[in-house]
Amino acid sequence: MSRTLSDVLAAIRPVDPALFPVAKAHLDNLTKPRGSLGRLEELAARLFAISGGQPPVVDPARIYVCAGDHGVAEAGVSLFPQEVTRQMVANFLAGGAGINVLAATAGIDLRVVDAGCLGEPFPAHPRFAGARVASGTASFLNGPAMSREICVKALTLGVSLADQAAAEGVKALGTGDMGIANTTPSTALFCAYLGLSAKDITGPGTGLDTHGVARKAEVIDAGLALHRDVVASGDPVAILAALGGLEIACLAGLVLGAAANRLPIAVDGFISTAAYTAARAICPTVADYAVLSHASAEPGYAAIMSAMGQKPLLDLGLRLGEGTGAALALFLLRASANVYNDMATFAAAGVNSGEA
Amino acid sequence: MSRTLSDVLAAIRPVDPALFPVAKAHLDNLTKPRGSLGRLEELAARLFAISGGQPPVVDPARIYVCAGDHGVAEAGVSLFPQEVTRQMVANFLAGGAGINVLAATAGIDLRVVDAGCLGEPFPAHPRFAGARVASGTASFLNGPAMSREICVKALTLGVSLADQAAAEGVKALGTGDMGIANTTPSTALFCAYLGLSAKDITGPGTGLDTHGVARKAEVIDAGLALHRDVVASGDPVAILAALGGLEIACLAGLVLGAAANRLPIAVDGFISTAAYTAARAICPTVADYAVLSHASAEPGYAAIMSAMGQKPLLDLGLRLGEGTGAALALFLLRASANVYNDMATFAAAGVNSGEA
Repeated sequence: MSRTLSDVLAAIRPVDPALFPVAKAHLDNLTKPRGSLGRLEELAARLFAISGGQPPVVDPARIYVCAGDHGVAEAGVSLFPQEVTRQMVANFLAGGAGINVLAATAGIDLRVVDAGCLGEPFPAHPRFAGARVASGTASFLNGPAMSREICVKALTLGVSLADQAAAEGVKALGTGDMGIANTTPSTALFCAYLGLSAKDITGPGTGLDTHGVARKAEVIDAGLALHRDVVASGDPVAILAALGGLEIACLAGLVLGAAANRLPIAVDGFISTAAYTAARAICPTVADYAVLSHASAEPGYAAIMSAMGQKPLLDLGLRLGEGTGAALALFLLRASANVYNDMATFAAAGVNSGEA
Repeated sequence: MSRTLSDVLAAIRPVDPALFPVAKAHLDNLTKPRGSLGRLEELAARLFAISGGQPPVVDPARIYVCAGDHGVAEAGVSLFPQEVTRQMVANFLAGGAGINVLAATAGIDLRVVDAGCLGEPFPAHPRFAGARVASGTASFLNGPAMSREICVKALTLGVSLADQAAAEGVKALGTGDMGIANTTPSTALFCAYLGLSAKDITGPGTGLDTHGVARKAEVIDAGLALHRDVVASGDPVAILAALGGLEIACLAGLVLGAAANRLPIAVDGFISTAAYTAARAICPTVADYAVLSHASAEPGYAAIMSAMGQKPLLDLGLRLGEGTGAALALFLLRASANVYNDMATFAAAGVNSGEA
């Protein structure tokens, strides 16, 4: 079932641009002023194009929340101790975390992935998917966070999650992350892929003060300096291996796998967007399948969106990760699909369309 | 069951500000960094305060979509003919409109109110609530859109809808509107209540071109000039009678009734926000109970929000009305309530809170 990265990349095809005017003609025929459902109409047209011209379907939808630990946590870049990654995985399994509540509210299946936590393997649980690639990364201050081989394994794990979901009939995916300190590798990745500066986009993460943020930016700058040859090479997998994380690589693979399976994928906030940026650097066509869910409250997020030329769906001040923004975005995707499929046309409803 | 407007105003009490720190202490004890669910936490705290310190409850939730016709439509301020108001009411009853689809998606009960359509009364239907106050308004270019007596009747109709919902166990309300040409009276109301200028905030509504927008602004300016003494008087009910509409007054009454029943109310877009502005002018305390759902795509909306010092929850380019934005906002209110009630605490989940 598991396939190589190059097989996956070969399977990713752009959506057919000719399907957008077909979707628009349908939407313009529904009982509303043209375009008056704004981004819901834009999403509906995208879903129609992603499905190859079939009526949009979003359900069942599934979020994979992928967890990993980070060697760079030893540099004191987070307010929370590293053991919290494991504790939150247990919380995801027990159903008490923010993503459990929001996925349940939105009617979305939630699966938990230990992509790279530290410590003993977790006992089996029906909510677990996939299997750990490695026990945490090395600090990118001492060398690459992971070898290229491990990074490709984490990417392939993510692809296999999308393949499994598609085989089980899932119609839309969402990303979620957990990993103490993971805004640090994510920020480093944004700098490396988008040419941004650490001092401009480094933020408080879970709640650092000004001094903590300045220290974190120094850590990121030190990592970027150590790996400057890799960054300069532009090799997207090498950059991900040098500066990323196991859950981040897994999420990048999930984005690639969604595109390979022609499934829409709701990308959560700061960390998931870093993973998406890596996936897009590996294969730009993934942009056709991805929806950026929400503006992270991390202060650098606006500069990142500007560099990527994108505008996320929601701006609710969320900065939790876990897929919480993706759960809300998947609800909006469902709403868009229902608009496309369930609204009456002017003719069927006997409503004057305002046309001559 | 029906009560007078002054009874209703006497029943509206501010929420207790002492409940906000209680809510915050609870939210800060849940397994997430403090404040990391952003506006969902803000909403959860508001729901807690609105309920008087009980765990927030949003369901069952109900949207009233209130319809009315406008004498000013004869001035050619809309792209759609006036008969579309009636046709869309029939579409709401048949289940084919945008609000039917989004209310169903969000699991919200939808009721339709003929506050003031033209033509024969509609046949009975289980989705109808309330009863028509009058058959359309007069054009505000010739005199007041309605008499003060009719305006108060429409306000009282809205209050009675909230009373009925509360009596039936509804826990949260949403507003929706239908009325060809109703961005014109709404814009006039924003100008009158907030001191804004028609040329600054008049927009295309269902799709006027530049020339049509300029003509519409002239119509609004003419109405404001004719009723300048009423506007200058600052009497909020007189302003609503002079420049408003039957569905707009009914929605203003619904907002007053929600506050009187201590129910949260999600205010939809441009027209509903004009109704909310009227309700707030009549009784500023309604602000404690109202949530502005979404930024209308009408270009004047940003100036209106700035004048009111508010920021709506969503910005999805919606400009349909009908309660479509309120349906999405009620989903977010439900998500907020579930976060408050269902997330695990740090202690219960065995997660380190990051505190010393």
